[in-house]
Amino acid sequence: MIVTFVHVWVKPGMEEAFVKASTENHLNSIKEPGNLRFDILRDAGNPSKFVLYEAYESEEAAAVHKETSHYLKWRDAVADMMAQPRKGEKHEIVCPSDRKMWKR
Amino acid sequence: MIVTFVHVWVKPGMEEAFVKASTENHLNSIKEPGNLRFDILRDAGNPSKFVLYEAYESEEAAAVHKETSHYLKWRDAVADMMAQPRKGEKHEIVCPSDRKMWKR
Repeated sequence: MIVTFVHVWVKPGMEEAFVKASTENHLNSIKEPGNLRFDILRDAGNPSKFVLYEAYESEEAAAVHKETSHYLKWRDAVADMMAQPRKGEKHEIVCPSDRKMWKR
Repeated sequence: MIVTFVHVWVKPGMEEAFVKASTENHLNSIKEPGNLRFDILRDAGNPSKFVLYEAYESEEAAAVHKETSHYLKWRDAVADMMAQPRKGEKHEIVCPSDRKMWKR
């Protein structure tokens, strides 16, 4: 299991459009068989800064996500909303170690 | 609902002790009525860097966590393991917007 934090800086004024496109991506991503979590967070101190918290069964499952039509649609939809390039940070999972605690 | 990322930099050589103390804290924290998630992640590129992903019902529930005996035990246990002060980042939740998707 792996978790990637994707840090996103949105151009001021485009936050609502970003939330709309990302919510659609979230709703489809959590249906992927290899997805464990796909949380979307907004920085409490900076309304233009978001984090996607993407947990997957494996590196392969995370790679499959990037080939889905909903990911590609999101990627294209938000391309012009980025104030700077997105930054991904990969993490290993320490807890919960039990797989059942991850998948809803 | 709120999510706090707690960034932790552990002194090299103390990672195993940190994982042990934090796993105990995790197992108790997820039993708190106001807790939604308490994931512990390890940076894939830096084995001494961790993130606690703490989701709570409310600011109040997050504050209650810091009064629990398991939190205080953890705080004291890891005090000498810190390579630098911990850094907390508060976030609002965009997705999942449905409370039922959070609590296991």
